[in-house]
Amino acid sequence: MSDLVRGIGDDAAVLKSAAAGHDLVVTTDLLIEEIDFQLNTTEPHSLGYKALAVSLSDIAAMGARPRWGMLSIGVPEAVWKSKTLEDFYQGYFQLARRYGVTLIGGDVSRTPDKIVIDSFVIGETAEAGAVFRSGARAGDQIFVTGFLGDAAAGLRLLARGARPHRDTTPDLRQTDDAHSIDRLLLRQLQPEPRVGWGLQIGTQKLATAMIDLSDGLSSDLNHLCTESKVGALVDAARIPIDPLVVELSGRRALDPLMLALHGGEDFELLFTVAPDDVGKLPKRVDGVPLTRIGEIKPATEGINISEGSRTWKLEPGGWEHFKG
Amino acid sequence: MSDLVRGIGDDAAVLKSAAAGHDLVVTTDLLIEEIDFQLNTTEPHSLGYKALAVSLSDIAAMGARPRWGMLSIGVPEAVWKSKTLEDFYQGYFQLARRYGVTLIGGDVSRTPDKIVIDSFVIGETAEAGAVFRSGARAGDQIFVTGFLGDAAAGLRLLARGARPHRDTTPDLRQTDDAHSIDRLLLRQLQPEPRVGWGLQIGTQKLATAMIDLSDGLSSDLNHLCTESKVGALVDAARIPIDPLVVELSGRRALDPLMLALHGGEDFELLFTVAPDDVGKLPKRVDGVPLTRIGEIKPATEGINISEGSRTWKLEPGGWEHFKG
Repeated sequence: MSDLVRGIGDDAAVLKSAAAGHDLVVTTDLLIEEIDFQLNTTEPHSLGYKALAVSLSDIAAMGARPRWGMLSIGVPEAVWKSKTLEDFYQGYFQLARRYGVTLIGGDVSRTPDKIVIDSFVIGETAEAGAVFRSGARAGDQIFVTGFLGDAAAGLRLLARGARPHRDTTPDLRQTDDAHSIDRLLLRQLQPEPRVGWGLQIGTQKLATAMIDLSDGLSSDLNHLCTESKVGALVDAARIPIDPLVVELSGRRALDPLMLALHGGEDFELLFTVAPDDVGKLPKRVDGVPLTRIGEIKPATEGINISEGSRTWKLEPGGWEHFKG
Repeated sequence: MSDLVRGIGDDAAVLKSAAAGHDLVVTTDLLIEEIDFQLNTTEPHSLGYKALAVSLSDIAAMGARPRWGMLSIGVPEAVWKSKTLEDFYQGYFQLARRYGVTLIGGDVSRTPDKIVIDSFVIGETAEAGAVFRSGARAGDQIFVTGFLGDAAAGLRLLARGARPHRDTTPDLRQTDDAHSIDRLLLRQLQPEPRVGWGLQIGTQKLATAMIDLSDGLSSDLNHLCTESKVGALVDAARIPIDPLVVELSGRRALDPLMLALHGGEDFELLFTVAPDDVGKLPKRVDGVPLTRIGEIKPATEGINISEGSRTWKLEPGGWEHFKG
């Protein structure tokens, strides 16, 4: 694919229009120092990586393929002269290369004292078009990719002083504490956007509605249900919580279910599938499993969660980031 | 034109791909409080207007039509609760409506203390494609739209305490001092992107190269010549300086030629035209005149400016804003 007519270096970047039948998908995410990240817990490399990851997650949630990125970054004088910017771009490009995203432009400015980053990504849908939040119907089954609560657990570990070990490749087979903690920290610091899952769902139009879990399951399921004008029933026992989170939570007085329901930034995908299509779903994509956690209900029933014989209303409790 | 499939409210906006043969043009501009603007001299309305204007100017400089905007804005708590944001969006939409730009998304965040704005605009080229900085050839004639130095004069007047009168419509026929000053202040605070000129040039592919004057004539002509691998000779006497700037400069000890050469943010267009095409140029577009200021020369001759019988090297002296 070589649809780039002109990249960085002119007044604007120029793209050949997409092939007929393929729509464009565009998203932007603003990251502000001291609001969205803290420099004392976030390496520049991770910051660059995450700036792109959150936008790729949005593109995946539309069932689209990410293609082009633009990056605006404002940094104070001291950072400008340091190695920070170089490390930041290395993190960005590490993820960009993996998913074939080309940086086509952006803007760089100085700031009085804080770092600000705005990442813009353009993607392309399959011929089936984008998957919206608004298509869920009563009877559809609700699925999530991966495990929930990891990023929130990682954030709490960071707040308690934990830092990732350098030169450590997180390995699922490792079970010792340091490696386990590293894996949770990286889920917060370098979240993995579910690009492969998004493409599978988009290409085969397997989902009736989809959203990425950036605010938390409770908030994002509410967003999807509001847009689709439906209710939902989630089975608490089916929510995929990482055994690591359960284990660490027990020792650190955290409630794993609360982390999984209300903790944000897991960047997993939540989608709804018509009963007839459930059998067509792959079990895993890129090694990431899929779990059915509930069912879409009529709007009149509201959004609820059942735990054993009890059922209660699932109120949005995630982190609201005021996204326009 | 109704190519918007989904605007604000999903994980990303979705656009129908442009008609075959029409390329997409994308640009972004970051504005940082205390670096790119001062709240004590800039009304929120003007700030919203200018945030879009600078991006529209980039689209015009590609010879393209602006279509869609995305706006990321970070504001401190106090601003969030004030009328500032509303005024800001009013300014943005005032300009967006004029040029048929639809806001399709963005992000809003809090900041610790300063305002940051990142504006993205997507445009569409005519079938002739985009006009780059790189196509100028020796013998091409150099043209600029409008008048130069106004924005720099306005900036200096603001620094000396001048403020625009509210409820004043700047009127070219007004010659009294207050109105004259207002007009220069507004050229700095609410610059008028040359969208009409950009479309004329792009649709008929009249220019071999084009750039917008954001950094200043001396810097931007250097950018264009570097990309085109050519030199240039500018005739100082032909540079269109607003009589108002000349008049006010005399009374305020400013050098009008220096403002016109090195003052940034005029957001006029500079373009180069093959000798055979010069006769096809319109005299005015949207009332904005055109002036021939010089000629493209071989690279070996460098970039020079002549004033009477003297000729000297035209060094970039404009404001460098580190645009990627």
